[in-house]
Formats: sequence, structure tokens, C-alpha cells
Amino acid sequence: MGIIRASAFSVSIDGFAAGLHQTIDNPFGERGMALPDWMLKTRMFHTMTGRNGGSTGVDDGFAERSMENIGAWIMGRNMFGPMRGPWPDESWKGWWGPNPPYHTPVYVLTHHARASIEMEGGTVFQFVTDGIEPALKQARAAAKDRDIRVGGGASVVRQFLQAGLLDEMHLALPAVLLGAGESLFAGLDLPALGYAPVDRLTGENATHVKIGRKSA
Amino acid sequence: MGIIRASAFSVSIDGFAAGLHQTIDNPFGERGMALPDWMLKTRMFHTMTGRNGGSTGVDDGFAERSMENIGAWIMGRNMFGPMRGPWPDESWKGWWGPNPPYHTPVYVLTHHARASIEMEGGTVFQFVTDGIEPALKQARAAAKDRDIRVGGGASVVRQFLQAGLLDEMHLALPAVLLGAGESLFAGLDLPALGYAPVDRLTGENATHVKIGRKSA
Repeated sequence: MGIIRASAFSVSIDGFAAGLHQTIDNPFGERGMALPDWMLKTRMFHTMTGRNGGSTGVDDGFAERSMENIGAWIMGRNMFGPMRGPWPDESWKGWWGPNPPYHTPVYVLTHHARASIEMEGGTVFQFVTDGIEPALKQARAAAKDRDIRVGGGASVVRQFLQAGLLDEMHLALPAVLLGAGESLFAGLDLPALGYAPVDRLTGENATHVKIGRKSA
Repeated sequence: MGIIRASAFSVSIDGFAAGLHQTIDNPFGERGMALPDWMLKTRMFHTMTGRNGGSTGVDDGFAERSMENIGAWIMGRNMFGPMRGPWPDESWKGWWGPNPPYHTPVYVLTHHARASIEMEGGTVFQFVTDGIEPALKQARAAAKDRDIRVGGGASVVRQFLQAGLLDEMHLALPAVLLGAGESLFAGLDLPALGYAPVDRLTGENATHVKIGRKSA
């Protein structure tokens, strides 16, 4: 059976997965685009966005693997869009245009119900209002024996870690300081939750650390 | 004139410079010895402790440079020893034996006055009870044109950063999770204080990031 994982999840030196003040033009908040910059430079991302070129080293290997063998995604509502509170209308369909890069069901955690959205290319956004465990149950049914990727943001990844539900987390650590924003680690005792670093590799523009369950 | 710097300052992925519950047997607190492990493996540290061997790569280069051209040290009382509150007696003279590796004046920030201690090899521990700026003034007079190294721990480094007094900070980032302890970053907005990453290099057992003042 596939695993439940967060992958290519970028965190600043000071522990933030996004800056403050997300807007439609600034999906990662203030200064936050420095976080995925390592990934935007890879051949994987170039190919995904219909362009030639891009780096082909360690960063690209992690970017490639982050997208492989995924049968369903789970993401938080702030990763889906910049608006807060009740949906103003049905017009927002994510940051990614008519054919998003997921090509699987995507379970969006939100407090505000909304009808599913079928996009081109197999992506179906489904809105889950009763928390991570129901989302996970639906994702498992959809993913069958493939992996479930917990996309983000920090709040959703934290919920999965706190519940001990994440099998693996690949953090990409670029040399970036944000100063404020969405903290991945604040108040989160990963060793007490049974997690430990299992690998560290150096990419061109980020250090990659894999975190897994401690062998008890 | 020399600069004011923190060097070879080890921080976990989750932002801690020491674990909880420092004791005489555990100067870096619970699980904390994983933090300086990269440095303990270098030739610099082997030589400093009278042994042959040790790694000679990037980690060792940073370890070597961390000790060069220093005219005075400033450290917090918890880096000097595990006791808290008033000094019980004059017996504690640091973790480092009769000939500490500093060989300069060392200004120890504390709320509890104590007579200076002259050690072998030129190290003189001097206890400063009126804060970082008086300590810095004394350190500058002692260091003349050499660098002043702010040793740690997190609290002292944070005070220097908050006051904008640190010229350069070299962080060593091993793939370590502590879960709890002394946070370097909590509530500290380094970009707002004028700091930015200036370099990133990969060592055998830690990633090294240099942080300096933003060119305004």
C-alpha cells in the first residue's frame, strides 16, 4: 500500500513554510517565493510548465520523486486559494489554471462546504469540512495502492504529524530567512511524536532532509 | 577593526540551539550533543583536544575559521555552566578543564557577580552583570583589532541580533530534530533586523549558512 507523505515541502532556516499576508499575487506570502525557488529552477518544473531546460541534479531528482506514484492529494484551504471565510462564489478554481498539475482527486480541507470541481487532466477538487481523518479515508479509497501526498500548508502538515499519520516528510531547506509567517515547528515536538531525520542530501539550491518514523 | 560574530553555532532543523534540561553531564541538554557532533568530528577539534585524526573537509574549514583571529569571547552563563541562580561557591570554572580553548578574556553574562578567574593558557573568565553593551565595550578594549566571538547560547546570540550588534553569524545546520529546547528564532524577525543569508556551503555532517547584514 502506498504511504502518506509530504514532499518537496520548503521551510526557511527560521522554520516558516510561508510568509505573512498571502495574496493572489503572492501565494507564499511576503518574501515567500524564495521558498520554492529551488523547485522552480528544476527540469521537472520546467517540463510541467511546458518549457525546456531547468536543472537536472539533486534538486530535480527530489522534485521528480515528489510527483511520482501519487494517487490522491490533500491540501489546506490556503494552499488552494488566498480568500478566507465562506466562498464568495464558485469562480475560484485554484492557482493552477484549467489543467492543474495534480491529475488525481485533491481533497481540500476547509470549514466551508462547496461543490466538487472537475478540472482538465483528471484533477478533481473535493472540499472536506470534517477534518483530516475523513479526508484521509476518502483519499485512501481514491489512491488505492498509490501514495497520498499531503501538499500543505504548514497547518495541514502539522495536523498530520500531530496525529502520527504522516509516514514520511521530505523537507527542502533553502538558505532563506522569512522572519515571520506560517511556522512548521512551533510547539511541535517531532521526536516525541516518533519522528527522526533519516537522510540528508545537498541540492544545488536547497538541502534536502527526509524525516521518517523512528525505528522503535 | 575586527568584527563581532557568532561562529560554528549549531541549530537543529526545528530551530533549537540546545535541548531541555541542561546538566553537568549534558551541557547541550537532552539530545543536544547531536548539535555539535559535526564539529567534534573535525581535525580542528581533534587537534584542540590533543588527538590525531578528524575530518579535513568543509566542516573542518568552518571549525578552523571559527577559532581564528579572536581577541575576546562573550558567552552566557548557561554556556559557562549548568548551575542557575547565585553561585554556590567558587569551585566551578567552566566545562573545559584547567586550560580552556579560548586563550583570551571571556566575558560571561550573568545576574550574579563573581570574581574573575585566571585559567592556564591565557583564558580569563570575567563576569559581567550589567548586560551585553558593557560586556561588548570591555571585549572591544581587550580584543583590540581582532574579532569578538559571541559564543552562545541562544539567549545571548538573540540579544546581540535584536540589538543589531552582530556583524556575522555562521550557523551550522545538522540534520537533527530536538523537539524542544532553546529556540534561536522564536519571535526573532531577522530580515526586519537587517539580516540576510549571504552564503550556503555543504559540509560532511552539517550545512553551513552565513548570515550577514543586508546591503541596504
